[in-house]
Amino acid sequence: MDAAAKVKVVNQYVEAFEKADINIIKAIYADNAVVEDPVGSEAHHGIDAIVAFYEGAFKMGAKLSLNETPRCAGNAVAFSFTVKVGDMTIEPIDVFRFDADGKIASMKAFWGPENVTQ
Amino acid sequence: MDAAAKVKVVNQYVEAFEKADINIIKAIYADNAVVEDPVGSEAHHGIDAIVAFYEGAFKMGAKLSLNETPRCAGNAVAFSFTVKVGDMTIEPIDVFRFDADGKIASMKAFWGPENVTQ
Repeated sequence: MDAAAKVKVVNQYVEAFEKADINIIKAIYADNAVVEDPVGSEAHHGIDAIVAFYEGAFKMGAKLSLNETPRCAGNAVAFSFTVKVGDMTIEPIDVFRFDADGKIASMKAFWGPENVTQ
Repeated sequence: MDAAAKVKVVNQYVEAFEKADINIIKAIYADNAVVEDPVGSEAHHGIDAIVAFYEGAFKMGAKLSLNETPRCAGNAVAFSFTVKVGDMTIEPIDVFRFDADGKIASMKAFWGPENVTQ
């Protein structure tokens, strides 16, 4: 899986929020994926829990934009971005780890209260 | 370990490069730490291997500056920064995981050829 393929998944992720399209989420995540958002909170295990998590985010109207060029390395990509939800702005760094099929096997979101403005 | 303590370690890391001070590296890393830079390459296990790795980087004159506010979450911090080494610029995202003593237990650096300019 080359860097272009990883960055494509990042762009699909942004597009999923833009269109509130849960089918994109289903397409880019592995069935047995794990999402930890933020790191340190209880993780969402498996595609059903992950879909429920993103449906909640889409319902709140969250929209994403990339801050910088994604960093691709090994089986992973790390990227800095901005989330707008109503009047709230959050600036996380997410890390996707990909499986052998190019699906996201794990997502970890790094952000805390210091990265939230209102 | 609160966010301020994690950000302090990030700033000490930048300072270590600024001063080419290997004692700062010895102070912020756990003895049994693991450094994977970039992710996907062979990791450096233990403080002796880690010190050798940074001594090499210091010898090349690498200097760091943060791009954005670090993201603190759980036992970790992720941060985007710029490395200047001679005419070369690298823009990684690093993730530090801390142990119970507030030392860096693992460092993962996410960057690839797309994040290097010359």
